[in-house]
Amino acid sequence: MSLTRCLIAHTEVQAFIERCMLTVGTKPSHAKSLAEVLVEGDRRGHYSHGLNRMDLYVKEIDAGICAKDGEPVIEKESVATALVNGKNLLGPVVGNYCMSLAIKKAQDVGIGWVVARGSNHYGIAAYYSMQALKENMIGMTYTNTSPLVVPTRAKECTLGTNPISVAAPARNGDSFVLDMATSAVALGKVELHKRNGNSIPVGWGCDAQGRLSTDPGKVLSGGGLVPIGGCEITGGHKGFGLGMMVEVFCGMLAGSQYSRHIRTWRVTDRMADLGQCFVAINPENFAPGFSDRMSDLLSLHRNLEPVEPGVPVVAPGDPEKMHIDMCQSLGGIPYHLSVVNHMNDFARTIGVSPLLPNNRIIQ
Amino acid sequence: MSLTRCLIAHTEVQAFIERCMLTVGTKPSHAKSLAEVLVEGDRRGHYSHGLNRMDLYVKEIDAGICAKDGEPVIEKESVATALVNGKNLLGPVVGNYCMSLAIKKAQDVGIGWVVARGSNHYGIAAYYSMQALKENMIGMTYTNTSPLVVPTRAKECTLGTNPISVAAPARNGDSFVLDMATSAVALGKVELHKRNGNSIPVGWGCDAQGRLSTDPGKVLSGGGLVPIGGCEITGGHKGFGLGMMVEVFCGMLAGSQYSRHIRTWRVTDRMADLGQCFVAINPENFAPGFSDRMSDLLSLHRNLEPVEPGVPVVAPGDPEKMHIDMCQSLGGIPYHLSVVNHMNDFARTIGVSPLLPNNRIIQ
Repeated sequence: MSLTRCLIAHTEVQAFIERCMLTVGTKPSHAKSLAEVLVEGDRRGHYSHGLNRMDLYVKEIDAGICAKDGEPVIEKESVATALVNGKNLLGPVVGNYCMSLAIKKAQDVGIGWVVARGSNHYGIAAYYSMQALKENMIGMTYTNTSPLVVPTRAKECTLGTNPISVAAPARNGDSFVLDMATSAVALGKVELHKRNGNSIPVGWGCDAQGRLSTDPGKVLSGGGLVPIGGCEITGGHKGFGLGMMVEVFCGMLAGSQYSRHIRTWRVTDRMADLGQCFVAINPENFAPGFSDRMSDLLSLHRNLEPVEPGVPVVAPGDPEKMHIDMCQSLGGIPYHLSVVNHMNDFARTIGVSPLLPNNRIIQ
Repeated sequence: MSLTRCLIAHTEVQAFIERCMLTVGTKPSHAKSLAEVLVEGDRRGHYSHGLNRMDLYVKEIDAGICAKDGEPVIEKESVATALVNGKNLLGPVVGNYCMSLAIKKAQDVGIGWVVARGSNHYGIAAYYSMQALKENMIGMTYTNTSPLVVPTRAKECTLGTNPISVAAPARNGDSFVLDMATSAVALGKVELHKRNGNSIPVGWGCDAQGRLSTDPGKVLSGGGLVPIGGCEITGGHKGFGLGMMVEVFCGMLAGSQYSRHIRTWRVTDRMADLGQCFVAINPENFAPGFSDRMSDLLSLHRNLEPVEPGVPVVAPGDPEKMHIDMCQSLGGIPYHLSVVNHMNDFARTIGVSPLLPNNRIIQ
């Protein structure tokens, strides 16, 4: 893999993804919604959930596995809750719809708890939880995903990386943004170690016999990721429990696919029918001074003396903010040339003009 | 520590704890509520949150640090939310009040999200989340606690073990019951290893320099527990994020004490003023068939082929159910004699009759 990187303006990445999605017939507003989430993934430094995955979305729309057009529909509703049918639309279309519904309910009664079935991959989870920040609310989201994680004591993948994201507003635009898979690490990290010929740390994955392994090849062929916490003695059963909790809020409440019934990762032979959960909570309904306390909680932690001088204690969301700042000071998003070349090759096959000049080599 | 155990009927433990609490002036219904939570902790096998801690509650009531009498008060309310002032009452009094309020709201509008300030230690978290099961609802609770956990990259304890509990009903009285600290392990486990002269596994705690340590003495003097996930490379920052998330739902929403501002563990020189969160979600407001899916999710996992023959894959809550079954077949709760003797010595100092015959030695 080329380690050379080039800089591309985020507006150009946005336009490129929209061009690719439109060419296979995606409704323009849906193409825009998808592009926005993927660009935000890259800006936040989560390249595994950005441009890098664009071809998968294009192929699913093109193959009719994911719906090109339509709108999500509310199937059941109270002042504080809703069950939404995502109508097999792109994940970001479903996610934006549900999150704004949750926020509206939280404005009315202090909380909105919205669950969707019939959804698809929605990119980075924080994109949705953070929408609540604009309204000075707490946002929360969960999604189930294709099985990649092996439960404690087992040998077989039955749970997805099932992420949890919670965002909470502090003073002056500052925030707490947790966005974490309930597996110890993302699959992409294991893949990267394999590609580079490196072993992985104990506690990332297991082999086909369910034993922790430092060989990324074994984890990727027949084994699986392990839940956060690693093996049982270090609390892996807690990560397993959190992964199941995500299913309670997603597949169980939604009546979508769940656990082992979700289609295999990267195999897109049928609809995903994912279950997702979107929550907004209005701090105004609770004790006054929420954002002041959040600011104190954040600064209390950021100002702790670090173990390693120069490696500061960071709050959830801080590393992503630093990446956004870096993109802003560079004037674009840095991409590995190999990713850009891959996407341009793909664009050519569907007759779409490539990403504009990637000659701003930065490394 | 004596490893000899004796059997005591749970009704006798209940009566004994009530006697001790009443003698220092606790309101009878409050003494009963506390005793019920502690007995349930022991029946579920979480002895660190049962009879073992009774003397602490008695001393706090006796010293006037915790209120003997009164009732929690709703300070702010919507159809779906409430902020409750716990009036410095015993944790279980506040917890029971808030959980039944959350359930009532979930019956009306599908969800109830109730936050309490001015509360105290409430025993095992699952006691509250499980109250929702009786109404065929999902229950959830969070509490902040005294600082014992060192954030990733730091040296100093700023977060409690901040537990998360989620309970969800399946068919025929079966259930999913997650009840986990957001630290890798409980403090009691480290203390036990120190008492027995054993080292602890890597990933449980750190020394005063914030470095992972296998020496329980270092963890207990100047060091601290580490978040679930262990060190940063194995995802400890996720456990740290979860611990902060609990503070978002507790201290931040409640306006109670939080993080480093909470009094030191075992130092009861002032009110605890803990923040706690209680949630009920009504599956009837979402897709039909919730409990069927829950039963499938549970049996799907319980029936997985285990890594070690004879060490079955268990769902969250299963080990506790096995402990309850054991108590039922034995006809009582097994206690270490040293705990019983300690509590009887304590009872003598406050003029209370001891736990009834503990001559049913079982080991």
